[in-house]
Amino acid sequence: MRYVFYSVQQCCLRVHLLARLKGFQKLTPVDDALRIFLEACPLKKLKTVHVHLDSALGRVSAEKIISKEDLPRVDRSAVDGYAVKAEDTVGASQFKPKTLTIADGEEISAKQGKQVWTGNPLPKEANAVIMLENTKRRGAEIEVWTPLTPNENVSKKGEDIKSGEIAVKAGIRLKPQHLGLMAALGMTSITVFEKPKIAILATGNELQEIGNKLQENQVFDVNRHVVSALCRELGAEPLDLGISKDNAEEITEKLRAGLSADVIITTGGTSVGAPDVVPEAVNKIGKPSILVHGIAMRPAMPTALAIVDEKPIVILSGNPVAAMIGFEFFARPLICRMLGLEREESRPTVEAELTKKVLTALGRRSFVRVRVFKENSKFFAEPISARGSGLISTMTRSNGYVIVPENREGLAQGETVLVHLFDNVEAVG
Amino acid sequence: MRYVFYSVQQCCLRVHLLARLKGFQKLTPVDDALRIFLEACPLKKLKTVHVHLDSALGRVSAEKIISKEDLPRVDRSAVDGYAVKAEDTVGASQFKPKTLTIADGEEISAKQGKQVWTGNPLPKEANAVIMLENTKRRGAEIEVWTPLTPNENVSKKGEDIKSGEIAVKAGIRLKPQHLGLMAALGMTSITVFEKPKIAILATGNELQEIGNKLQENQVFDVNRHVVSALCRELGAEPLDLGISKDNAEEITEKLRAGLSADVIITTGGTSVGAPDVVPEAVNKIGKPSILVHGIAMRPAMPTALAIVDEKPIVILSGNPVAAMIGFEFFARPLICRMLGLEREESRPTVEAELTKKVLTALGRRSFVRVRVFKENSKFFAEPISARGSGLISTMTRSNGYVIVPENREGLAQGETVLVHLFDNVEAVG
Repeated sequence: MRYVFYSVQQCCLRVHLLARLKGFQKLTPVDDALRIFLEACPLKKLKTVHVHLDSALGRVSAEKIISKEDLPRVDRSAVDGYAVKAEDTVGASQFKPKTLTIADGEEISAKQGKQVWTGNPLPKEANAVIMLENTKRRGAEIEVWTPLTPNENVSKKGEDIKSGEIAVKAGIRLKPQHLGLMAALGMTSITVFEKPKIAILATGNELQEIGNKLQENQVFDVNRHVVSALCRELGAEPLDLGISKDNAEEITEKLRAGLSADVIITTGGTSVGAPDVVPEAVNKIGKPSILVHGIAMRPAMPTALAIVDEKPIVILSGNPVAAMIGFEFFARPLICRMLGLEREESRPTVEAELTKKVLTALGRRSFVRVRVFKENSKFFAEPISARGSGLISTMTRSNGYVIVPENREGLAQGETVLVHLFDNVEAVG
Repeated sequence: MRYVFYSVQQCCLRVHLLARLKGFQKLTPVDDALRIFLEACPLKKLKTVHVHLDSALGRVSAEKIISKEDLPRVDRSAVDGYAVKAEDTVGASQFKPKTLTIADGEEISAKQGKQVWTGNPLPKEANAVIMLENTKRRGAEIEVWTPLTPNENVSKKGEDIKSGEIAVKAGIRLKPQHLGLMAALGMTSITVFEKPKIAILATGNELQEIGNKLQENQVFDVNRHVVSALCRELGAEPLDLGISKDNAEEITEKLRAGLSADVIITTGGTSVGAPDVVPEAVNKIGKPSILVHGIAMRPAMPTALAIVDEKPIVILSGNPVAAMIGFEFFARPLICRMLGLEREESRPTVEAELTKKVLTALGRRSFVRVRVFKENSKFFAEPISARGSGLISTMTRSNGYVIVPENREGLAQGETVLVHLFDNVEAVG
């Protein structure tokens, strides 16, 4: 037995290292981890910016749009035909048509009709429009073949939206239809939230940047490219912090640079091995630092969540699949909340029949990648290789995932499962 | 009775006008209309362009990516632990551990283990990895507590993707996971299709551009903004042809300018009223011109489809809702095909219970706007105002549509319907 004298600092470091080497002492359930993290995240809103209507697609509204007028602004014809008084058409039929004379002023009198096209304002005193195909023109007169009720084929003033009504709520991801309603109201711009800036750092001695030549034992960094794209999909702006070696000082320095962003996301170096120095580096840059490390889920167990100087930090696994799943469950809700979205956007789901059984670990929430396909108008979900959370191709071969809860050890063949889709579903029959 | 002499040209025009004023003589079924249109569309592929991996999100791959190597490039550890020979662990348990000595070279011998971290290449002769938490280190030795099978916790060479395998197919909308797999292969760029250019023209004497002051009887143009956004959502590039009066010469001139784009989309002027001169203008600019005019659907019945000088022209209704539905069923499949997508992208769907009955017209395919919400983990679809295809707010108040087939006169309350979603679903309970 050898005795070695350590300084206090060295001693702490060594205890810390030994703790890491033993594996996670305690895993936090997924829901608790997310709650702890989001509750600790400061509720600072992003800055807002005015954008032109035609640049607002996909942005999140930062203001409530209240209509200042009625739409339509006046009663309008909803069809091509003749504006009439409904009472003049009572009893009309193709066998007993009613005859009206054609008016062409701004108003009509009894037993008159005025030709209108879709969208034309109704002449005064008219209260309904007979469709062209239900009339026959005879010189200066028309035969009306069907009876009308008041307001029939009329778009009433204020029927689309009334003055004082909310046209678009705040916290809405703007779709083409929202832009349409704003255009109808004559708006040219809207206040939206700025895109949150997400600084992304990959860590790992083995990582090489694409475009360079791989040295022995190196692999290309995948995660920065995937995480950037995931951020872009949500409408956030990725900032590249590059690749760091598994070196606490280098990581600390890069993280400090990242604090100018709204969120930092790291990948790698978060497990319990000797090179896993990211949580240590995060703890060094500020308070309150790591809140959760080690989550009862598979994949993505080594995920850690931290707050430093009011900035959320999501510390993802270096395994590409685990990084994507960790992003999905922790970064995505965070970014949706930062974006000011009224509610988190969920992925589309589909119920499908599992084509083969799946085994999962009790006490962990498991995420099973599946390929959903449609055959004879029924959906099936084929589990894709449970092995290897590092196999990025399992994500391109699948189009969704199934969540297996903590209290189950797997799913049975033929079971109906809810699939969360991240790509299109193919119809094979 | 008055006799008037017309020139042949005037006469043709007059006959044409009278035909228009009678309503559509014949409505083409939706599926036939789309088939006729797509079959007549030239199969010219868009030009391709190389883009950096980080700019490729959402673009459509124009080349098939074949892996030039195995991934992983060598056998790697999938966990933190010790690389061993599986046969040395047979019979190991926490009560009867096997003891191995620690190796630190490039290979191991019998009864040896070498510490490895996730992702490390396996030392020669090792064929499995024992996880750290299933071992105990005692100086230069480790106790192994569980038996391993060969390849356990190993990412085998080529397990992710093999040399010669297709990594990404052509005609795929690139998602983060595709970019990830390409990064893993060391690729920095990919060939994608150029964005199709869609020229958009709104027609209507009543239209005013947002930002200007409305004159009497004017409304703001909604459709150019909505159609632009719908194009952008699909990854196409809108080109603005502005607003034209209901004047065949002005429309003809603007359409000619639009022929430099890949597709033209017009809105308005396509019904059977006197101001509906768009089909006439389209017929003037080239051949084969209008293929379908008047479709057995509601809304969007006046939609027309044309090809001129090999350019597809989609002639949408001026009613904003009808324009959106017409876009959905004719422009969307066309653009998906132009984009080179392997298959048309369908909107997410959900089965929901209809909250009240809906009446539709027999012989027309009807599109009923609904608001889907989730209550107690069940989906409900509430029909939104059947009236008024001009009411754009019915699109912002709904988040999907239900298709009622031609052979039905409506849907019953409580019926399970398939909703095609164009916005998020809200959970209300």
